[in-house]
Amino acid sequence: MATIKDVAKDAGVAVGTVSKVLNGQYVSAENKRKVEESVMRLGYQMNYYARGLKTHYTYTIAVIVPDILNPFFACLVYHIEKELYKLGYKMFLCQSQMDPEKEAYYLRLVRQNKVDGIMGLTFNENDAYFTGDIPVVMFDRHFKGPVCCISSDNFLGGELAAERLLAGGSRRLLFIRTGSHLSSETLKRGQGFEAMCQKEQIPYEMLDFGDDADFFPGQAIFEALESRLEGGKPSFDGIYTSTDGLALEVLKQLERLHIQVPQDVQVIGHDGLRRMNRGDYLVSSIAQPVEDMARAGVESLLRKIKKEETEETIILPVTFVEGGTTR
Amino acid sequence: MATIKDVAKDAGVAVGTVSKVLNGQYVSAENKRKVEESVMRLGYQMNYYARGLKTHYTYTIAVIVPDILNPFFACLVYHIEKELYKLGYKMFLCQSQMDPEKEAYYLRLVRQNKVDGIMGLTFNENDAYFTGDIPVVMFDRHFKGPVCCISSDNFLGGELAAERLLAGGSRRLLFIRTGSHLSSETLKRGQGFEAMCQKEQIPYEMLDFGDDADFFPGQAIFEALESRLEGGKPSFDGIYTSTDGLALEVLKQLERLHIQVPQDVQVIGHDGLRRMNRGDYLVSSIAQPVEDMARAGVESLLRKIKKEETEETIILPVTFVEGGTTR
Repeated sequence: MATIKDVAKDAGVAVGTVSKVLNGQYVSAENKRKVEESVMRLGYQMNYYARGLKTHYTYTIAVIVPDILNPFFACLVYHIEKELYKLGYKMFLCQSQMDPEKEAYYLRLVRQNKVDGIMGLTFNENDAYFTGDIPVVMFDRHFKGPVCCISSDNFLGGELAAERLLAGGSRRLLFIRTGSHLSSETLKRGQGFEAMCQKEQIPYEMLDFGDDADFFPGQAIFEALESRLEGGKPSFDGIYTSTDGLALEVLKQLERLHIQVPQDVQVIGHDGLRRMNRGDYLVSSIAQPVEDMARAGVESLLRKIKKEETEETIILPVTFVEGGTTR
Repeated sequence: MATIKDVAKDAGVAVGTVSKVLNGQYVSAENKRKVEESVMRLGYQMNYYARGLKTHYTYTIAVIVPDILNPFFACLVYHIEKELYKLGYKMFLCQSQMDPEKEAYYLRLVRQNKVDGIMGLTFNENDAYFTGDIPVVMFDRHFKGPVCCISSDNFLGGELAAERLLAGGSRRLLFIRTGSHLSSETLKRGQGFEAMCQKEQIPYEMLDFGDDADFFPGQAIFEALESRLEGGKPSFDGIYTSTDGLALEVLKQLERLHIQVPQDVQVIGHDGLRRMNRGDYLVSSIAQPVEDMARAGVESLLRKIKKEETEETIILPVTFVEGGTTR
């Protein structure tokens, strides 16, 4: 079996350089590439068991998300696993389904030294698990304790959505959201949208359809939209939704009401989901930089594991993407 | 921390019953439910480390799929994780991206006793890894050695698709496929389709667009369909595709050609994917019983781990589902 020395020899670098790459420390991009290629080529694996005895590290990370049925979470986990693999880490996938008990079960793994660190999205009040020096990186939510928060710029996303609807000629806007009301960076989507509407003195309404994540409230949305028709015509001409999944539901209800998109009403979602997670954008959207978020999350977590300084919050930029539902 | 005795007491069953449930052995449905509820309620965790020392079991399974960007694989992994969690097993998620080296890397984990067993889908010639008594369950592919194969009834799926297209009035059929040419149960989709066309003496064509899984050959499909127009009208009136992802690509190209679906041409995909993996079916399709496949896979793997008899091949039934692209 290949040793770290074999990798160094194959890559033409020092053993210390290989070690740095495996531990996620800084080396030049060129050396990083060489080492990663040699690791793959030789099928090098850290001796987890021996290392575990020596250092108490397991080289295993637990990633918690509600589930990977949701294409956004699938995309996030996809990129996290790729990053972790490059650095010699294995990944437990933990789907909490937002069940507090299942979240707690997985959070205990890290306290019991079954994994070196934990990252993901949780949806319950579990500050209590994040005490002491447990390495934790969470997306979109702030916790007490030593938890690093990675997010994209949700406030800017909301502003950008309003701006784009206005640029396409919309003058009466709706914001529609579903999802948890727990304090979260994602609540800033509506706040940014509202701020831009106020700045531009454009009439707008904020509609909130609650927090059952398994449930797209199609009929409730239908009724809300129908009640805003005046003589068969919509009293709104631009909609921004808190997620792309919700935008798809809104599009379905607009079709039932014989409202043309984007001619009568423009629709912008949030996330930047693609058909089959690879093709065209499903709707016009505010795209999150998922790959960059995954990479920033893995980097921060490995720094935390090595007790290095990390930023408390990392906010990455979003972009508007065209998906056929804006003019 | 809860012990197995606490679980037994809480569930009102014998310790042996709890042990059987945790090891995936048969107990009555009622007792199984009671134990699972108590495991959740008490947050019971097997002491993996101590058990590992005693028995060499890790209570960890590696699941290999090409990636979870693909919604079908995401759905399969979703159900596998749920099943494993119920039985006290953790899951490494391994995305091979069909890279032989990455597949081999993960397959070595099981040989090194880092995990108790392995399941998933691999796309390279890796029979060599499946020797001796390594517990392996694979979906859709047969290997030499002690590998259990779980699949849905792809041949029936192909027959059913042809039958439905005929029942909807189509009389000139196309089968369009992409994907690996490795011997696989999924090749039977086309075979079943062809068999039904021959039986019903209906003209048909089989189009194969090769095996680059990252690539939906939109332009090549466009040209193939365009070359089959006669005076602007299609010379075909029913299409069955090897996956739903491919059906979506075909629908896009039909739209470019101003061909109406399902009026002019009916389209049936394969897999039974839903919008956001939860909503309506994306297209009319042959739905795989993903949850049942996951459960059968986990059950077979745990039997293999305990060196119990398993079936070599388990084939589960498929169903036709209506998704708006058939008449």
